[in-house]
Amino acid sequence: MSAHDDARTSGRLTHVRADGTAHMVDVSAKAVTSRVAVASSRLTTTAEVVDQMLEGTLPKGDALAVARVAGIMAAKRTPDLVPLCHPLPLTGVSVDLERAPDDPGAIAVRARVKTKGVTGVEMEALTAASVAALTLYDMVKALDRDAVIGPTRVEEKSGGASGDWGRGPADGLGDGGAGDSGTGDGGPGAESLGEGKDHG
Amino acid sequence: MSAHDDARTSGRLTHVRADGTAHMVDVSAKAVTSRVAVASSRLTTTAEVVDQMLEGTLPKGDALAVARVAGIMAAKRTPDLVPLCHPLPLTGVSVDLERAPDDPGAIAVRARVKTKGVTGVEMEALTAASVAALTLYDMVKALDRDAVIGPTRVEEKSGGASGDWGRGPADGLGDGGAGDSGTGDGGPGAESLGEGKDHG
Amino acid sequence: MSAHDDARTSGRLTHVRADGTAHMVDVSAKAVTSRVAVASSRLTTTAEVVDQMLEGTLPKGDALAVARVAGIMAAKRTPDLVPLCHPLPLTGVSVDLERAPDDPGAIAVRARVKTKGVTGVEMEALTAASVAALTLYDMVKALDRDAVIGPTRVEEKSGGASGDWGRGPADGLGDGGAGDSGTGDGGPGAESLGEGKDHG
Amino acid sequence: MSAHDDARTSGRLTHVRADGTAHMVDVSAKAVTSRVAVASSRLTTTAEVVDQMLEGTLPKGDALAVARVAGIMAAKRTPDLVPLCHPLPLTGVSVDLERAPDDPGAIAVRARVKTKGVTGVEMEALTAASVAALTLYDMVKALDRDAVIGPTRVEEKSGGASGDWGRGPADGLGDGGAGDSGTGDGGPGAESLGEGKDHG
Amino acid sequence: MSAHDDARTSGRLTHVRADGTAHMVDVSAKAVTSRVAVASSRLTTTAEVVDQMLEGTLPKGDALAVARVAGIMAAKRTPDLVPLCHPLPLTGVSVDLERAPDDPGAIAVRARVKTKGVTGVEMEALTAASVAALTLYDMVKALDRDAVIGPTRVEEKSGGASGDWGRGPADGLGDGGAGDSGTGDGGPGAESLGEGKDHG
Amino acid sequence: MSAHDDARTSGRLTHVRADGTAHMVDVSAKAVTSRVAVASSRLTTTAEVVDQMLEGTLPKGDALAVARVAGIMAAKRTPDLVPLCHPLPLTGVSVDLERAPDDPGAIAVRARVKTKGVTGVEMEALTAASVAALTLYDMVKALDRDAVIGPTRVEEKSGGASGDWGRGPADGLGDGGAGDSGTGDGGPGAESLGEGKDHG
Repeated sequence: MSAHDDARTSGRLTHVRADGTAHMVDVSAKAVTSRVAVASSRLTTTAEVVDQMLEGTLPKGDALAVARVAGIMAAKRTPDLVPLCHPLPLTGVSVDLERAPDDPGAIAVRARVKTKGVTGVEMEALTAASVAALTLYDMVKALDRDAVIGPTRVEEKSGGASGDWGRGPADGLGDGGAGDSGTGDGGPGAESLGEGKDHG
Repeated sequence: MSAHDDARTSGRLTHVRADGTAHMVDVSAKAVTSRVAVASSRLTTTAEVVDQMLEGTLPKGDALAVARVAGIMAAKRTPDLVPLCHPLPLTGVSVDLERAPDDPGAIAVRARVKTKGVTGVEMEALTAASVAALTLYDMVKALDRDAVIGPTRVEEKSGGASGDWGRGPADGLGDGGAGDSGTGDGGPGAESLGEGKDHG
Repeated sequence: MSAHDDARTSGRLTHVRADGTAHMVDVSAKAVTSRVAVASSRLTTTAEVVDQMLEGTLPKGDALAVARVAGIMAAKRTPDLVPLCHPLPLTGVSVDLERAPDDPGAIAVRARVKTKGVTGVEMEALTAASVAALTLYDMVKALDRDAVIGPTRVEEKSGGASGDWGRGPADGLGDGGAGDSGTGDGGPGAESLGEGKDHG
Repeated sequence: MSAHDDARTSGRLTHVRADGTAHMVDVSAKAVTSRVAVASSRLTTTAEVVDQMLEGTLPKGDALAVARVAGIMAAKRTPDLVPLCHPLPLTGVSVDLERAPDDPGAIAVRARVKTKGVTGVEMEALTAASVAALTLYDMVKALDRDAVIGPTRVEEKSGGASGDWGRGPADGLGDGGAGDSGTGDGGPGAESLGEGKDHG
Repeated sequence: MSAHDDARTSGRLTHVRADGTAHMVDVSAKAVTSRVAVASSRLTTTAEVVDQMLEGTLPKGDALAVARVAGIMAAKRTPDLVPLCHPLPLTGVSVDLERAPDDPGAIAVRARVKTKGVTGVEMEALTAASVAALTLYDMVKALDRDAVIGPTRVEEKSGGASGDWGRGPADGLGDGGAGDSGTGDGGPGAESLGEGKDHG
Repeated sequence: MSAHDDARTSGRLTHVRADGTAHMVDVSAKAVTSRVAVASSRLTTTAEVVDQMLEGTLPKGDALAVARVAGIMAAKRTPDLVPLCHPLPLTGVSVDLERAPDDPGAIAVRARVKTKGVTGVEMEALTAASVAALTLYDMVKALDRDAVIGPTRVEEKSGGASGDWGRGPADGLGDGGAGDSGTGDGGPGAESLGEGKDHG
């Protein structure tokens, strides 16, 4: 039984010992398995700003490409940023960015991370999605200082002792607005635990 | 006139040149001034999990302290994470965490960053808030995998050519729910451009 | 036979080749085993300053929590700091801080690091202990600039070709003073190669 | 068949998906094998400057030692620098520096990296060689601002699905000058896939 | 007189003390001035591979955008990579990539870095150019393992005590081949100390 | 009055607010001045091991050079390691290593750091000394696992509001043994706030 299963059973926070102090929990006894996690975020700005990012007549791509690269690099930096996160050998990272299906003024971010390791990669997927969204904000901030990041959340995970899991359609913030990841039904999300657009 | 003012006037994205490619914009001619930015985020989980983090009978503090430290360290790493961000000599960083006034099941995050430099510190404040929230998720994920991060946004800024700015009360996501930063009226936010709780 | 065994036999420095130049020694042929190392350090200041860190009536914890987090994060950065250190997948890190049993004016630091890897984790444990102690100094320096860090040393190790090892009771600096780790007999040290306070 | 083999067959760039966007390619299914890569670079300056670096009467060594250390440390940082590079557990790194056999005014750099992992270590070897050469430039730039780095290239690799490979004698830039690695015939290159000067 | 001027006069290596040991030279007394440096590199592969990177019918840009971002980020990491380099507050970085005018099988890299600081930014420009070229190699390596990086060199610098400097047309490696940066006459180089394509 | 002066007056820890939580204290109002700090550490092993490091017949230097480079690089990483440390533009770093005058079985480490900034550089000097000593341990650990690091402490500082300060001769650990920095009377320490061996 993993430390996290323990936590779920005992109602205790991850990484916190019985005396309340924090540590990086011992995972030496956990099995190495293939694990995948998918996280989503979004940047909500205006439709005009999204147009700028996506539909210019100039050689497009750099604005989104910069955010994509930032997200991928951040996934690798996760244990440097999140103090109690275990270092893991990531075996694949992709970050997809597109106009949100439900909001023409938003860019939806979807990060998918794989490893063969002893713990899950939810934190790496969340970090990739967060930093990609931060980078989008950095590029639109001169046009729209009011732009908002989030919600940022885990959408799916597979592998590991706790088995597969996916956020159900009613699992969102329940208001179909900012709480909806916008990459849902029939979109890339539906196949995100598969290989998606990977050419391998 | 700063490059960002240019962008606002010309409707062009920050950091993107006329040919669509990205660069770190030249700020050599901008004046060094004192600048402050405040950003907020939140982690929405359940009231029971927030109780665990805040109200245990054990020597409390580590769960929030870890998130606070992670946010402060992340502020210093911003130019390593956000590709086109300028390095800045941060002169002060604080991260405040508390149960959200409007939601007993949420932790509100408020990051305040100061510099004496040539560009604003919105990205540093947003990065601090984001990484503090990611770290909170890392500690609750065994209890509540459904926890959600955000909205993450700039609340106030001062200093620099573009002058002071604050998100108005109606500037939020407008639904009083996840869109409300929960650190609003009469709370620490009201004085956040002042010294707040600093002992200096 | 490992490169380190070679060194012990041949009387040559680790990481230094026959021509005197340094390299990161090849460990490809070494077996992956579970390995643990425990290192200790301490900050010697005054009893009044230690009181401040441990016994305030305010929500205590942050001063020690910051040092604990710093030590844990530093363990993960060891190969970035110690040039010839191999990167290792750490599977657990804990840092314990307490008033030294033998000196009311000192904080004892004890770092315990685990891996499943091809080399030992002494350097990671020493780095965690050193950076936790540096962080303690950073917090007391306005009160006691004279505070001193150390001795910092490996206390125990297990796993790997060279087998288990523990610093004997007479193995210290031999003066029972600053040379004594203060976490010895009957203290956490006695069980430190076991799981200690880990909740898993 | 690996993703890279795919690329070679299909004529597509590594790390670029069918829609032109970049990702860190999924290597979860690739086998862990021992892999070695050797890369070379050089700094071309004047014979007098090389004399300074190699033949002083003072306790020599620091100039080259600094470059050697920089190259070894950079190998470990490769996935932080090259955005789509997978993190790998390096098991050995050496960087050799010597006056180029074919040019008394050049220092030849040769970096050799080993791993037991799922992808090759060409990028780590190239990064080590590049950063060692950059560091050499940093030390000679006050004497010879015109010094030139390169050519930098992979010389040999072994392990992995694509098998062993070595740059043939006629595979260089074809001019026997700057295009020649200078560590060729009968030099360390000839045995570089073996243990070379390692004392293990 | 700066330490570097000293070095030029005395014929001593930068960063090396009279006893042969290395240090980060003291620049406290140097004046803060605006400084610019331009460095070039190139990746030499085949015309077909360059076609792939530049002329696809797919949404192009990511391959070059990734290299551009990598170069910009690496400029900021220079003092982490080159051991004796001073940290500097970079105020602008751009990396330009294009098919080399003199070789259809090569991509020319040109990095331009600005600061207001006490030392020049040659190392930052060289590092940006080197890492951009390494990243290009990473993307073509499955198609052309023989691709070669370099020559990498400083093209121009301005600001600081030693004044402006530019590599003369005859200052190259003298063979018009790999030694020619390919971004010469009438190209972007001619205006590279000006604002170039910056929109500010 | 600086925040640190406050702390000394009020008896409060640096970086800890009135409510016990940690922050990076606001130093925006502090003056930029030239500041220097010197810290010492040592590695205590056996005379035979020190002989190996210092007096080999082989091209010596690499063992100490690696530790020196590690210390210099670590000084630049201080704000990444010590959570509440302000980033500072270091203008000079040197690390001196020599056999301790008072103990043939010890290597004395002395780190000297300069800045023009708003806070002192004690933490940078202590970090440089600590990491240099850790690196020495890494190189002798196969020969002497019992080697001990420390005491590590600030020896002198100058600049800033609190003025110059030096640890008096009786300010050590008071036992003339491990507590004595070994680089004292008439040694490099006597002139360490001056330029020392710098060639500039």
